[in-house]
Amino acid sequence: MAAQKKNGLQTVWFQSPPVIISAASVVGFREGEGPLGKTFDKVVYDSYYGEKTWEKAEQRMMLDAMKKALQKAGLQEKDVDFILAGDLLNQIISANFTASSMSVPFLGLYGACSTMYEGMALGAMLIDGGFADRVLVATSSHYSTAERQYRFPTELGIQRPLTAQWTVTGAGAMLLAREGTGPVITHATIGRAIDMGQGDPMDMGAAMAPAAADTIMQHFVDTGRRPDYYDLIITGDLGAYGKKLAEQILAKNGYDIADRFTDCGILIYSGSQDVHAGGSGCGCSAVVTCGYLMEQLKSGRYKRFMGVGTGALMSPCSVQQGETIPGIGHAVVIEAR
Amino acid sequence: MAAQKKNGLQTVWFQSPPVIISAASVVGFREGEGPLGKTFDKVVYDSYYGEKTWEKAEQRMMLDAMKKALQKAGLQEKDVDFILAGDLLNQIISANFTASSMSVPFLGLYGACSTMYEGMALGAMLIDGGFADRVLVATSSHYSTAERQYRFPTELGIQRPLTAQWTVTGAGAMLLAREGTGPVITHATIGRAIDMGQGDPMDMGAAMAPAAADTIMQHFVDTGRRPDYYDLIITGDLGAYGKKLAEQILAKNGYDIADRFTDCGILIYSGSQDVHAGGSGCGCSAVVTCGYLMEQLKSGRYKRFMGVGTGALMSPCSVQQGETIPGIGHAVVIEAR
Repeated sequence: MAAQKKNGLQTVWFQSPPVIISAASVVGFREGEGPLGKTFDKVVYDSYYGEKTWEKAEQRMMLDAMKKALQKAGLQEKDVDFILAGDLLNQIISANFTASSMSVPFLGLYGACSTMYEGMALGAMLIDGGFADRVLVATSSHYSTAERQYRFPTELGIQRPLTAQWTVTGAGAMLLAREGTGPVITHATIGRAIDMGQGDPMDMGAAMAPAAADTIMQHFVDTGRRPDYYDLIITGDLGAYGKKLAEQILAKNGYDIADRFTDCGILIYSGSQDVHAGGSGCGCSAVVTCGYLMEQLKSGRYKRFMGVGTGALMSPCSVQQGETIPGIGHAVVIEAR
Repeated sequence: MAAQKKNGLQTVWFQSPPVIISAASVVGFREGEGPLGKTFDKVVYDSYYGEKTWEKAEQRMMLDAMKKALQKAGLQEKDVDFILAGDLLNQIISANFTASSMSVPFLGLYGACSTMYEGMALGAMLIDGGFADRVLVATSSHYSTAERQYRFPTELGIQRPLTAQWTVTGAGAMLLAREGTGPVITHATIGRAIDMGQGDPMDMGAAMAPAAADTIMQHFVDTGRRPDYYDLIITGDLGAYGKKLAEQILAKNGYDIADRFTDCGILIYSGSQDVHAGGSGCGCSAVVTCGYLMEQLKSGRYKRFMGVGTGALMSPCSVQQGETIPGIGHAVVIEAR
């Protein structure tokens, strides 16, 4: 058998850990001006990116990221077995339209802001399971497409509470392969959808924190590891309040991760950028992982980390109907080789 | 290696074909009154299913189907490694909320109406790859939730063109396992997103037909098989016009499948039910596969068939912005054992 997963556990082990042979990131101006700006491949200053709509701009960013990842690896579309992609827009049109411009078998995913990590976990399984030599994983988000779909017309200038987060404009793509040079994916812990009764769409960190904590704990239980095994544990977009909550839940359960725990949504903007609790969106964990974290592994600052993509499983319809917001977290362990 | 996929091909072979140990279907009254009515496990006559909203009713149908599939196999939630599920609603809330009431690792999918077949293909890969012993795959759709999200408030009674299809109210769930009794999944051919420039959301069969034909042809090329290898080739929801178009494209390319080709969307309603071109929606191929097709295998009428889940990759936003509609088709080969 190519892989190991013991019955009843949520964590899969990769016997021949798939290699991240390249990764690429394209971001908007706000992300480019943020503290991680220099770690991204391209900064786009026009929110329309020369297109007629923000939706087309987001698709162009996702296509750019995919093409850049292929180019860095010296490969072409025909060398890729599957594209795994998704995004925040209704019916994942960013991924669908981008995929329709690539002649590659395509599997659409939706895990809200956890989609990049869901794709990395599934892509690694398809490779280690023997079904693919190379898988291209990509996600995107765009402040302006998300804001008008999920919240208010941006023209209204509605005031946002301090727990609100700012949707990252950006796309990340990662090329996973059976063989090659680069960091490897050694484990994935697939999360459960957890609903603790939080219903405020302006405080999604609180909705996602219990799910992130559940996945992290389950990973430790499954692997027998302790937090200090990792140089870094990083969630996708819990933001300042959600991160604190996850930290507290973990501490109460005997896992003190505070000295090595951060969040992509906290890192991507500086305090002076007026984004309230931090960044969010499919693009948030995608560009921070494909840009900043890959660079940190390369520089040797970190040897291995656990990334946990986090998603708030709501829709404007479910919120308007008074439903609560389940959260989910998918963890992937990445090690420098 | 657990599996075979030759480079450049779209088809994966399962070396230890995963077993469909159970399948369950729950439908609305129109589907229950249709020609396949007796093949479904449960018919729900109240479109609200006792809930406050149609969205909650759809979730309840999906949960019913999942629980019924578990019950038929004599298994419980804890025996399942992963749930793979998706649906048509924005942010796949039917799947997300249903998953949040099950304590099982969850991977959200979106392939429009192809989602059931996407899930079956991925689920089979996770099992044959060694990552799971049992995977629960489910999708749903509901006429009333889809109609108001994609088209018009149903109260308006807008007239529909004859190419329009009727969204199936129903949910299907299938339990795949490494071992057990039942039909097996031997191959999966993952489709490419194909955009032929069709832009009319009231004629989605035409948007999906080229993608379905592409996947079917690619399957024949990859496997060296001819149409007569299968007792039946069945698409998900091309409807009357889309089916004819797919048939023509295949015939032009040297594959005459007319004598063994049908479509779930055509089978599910009778001509007198006034549904125009036929059924559609994630629930369409799901309930026909989990209900009718499983029964046909059991009765010995068919020994093996190729099902092709078909999806129209659009959103109301993309249509309103004047974009065309890419289609996709994922094929899965199922054989009685």
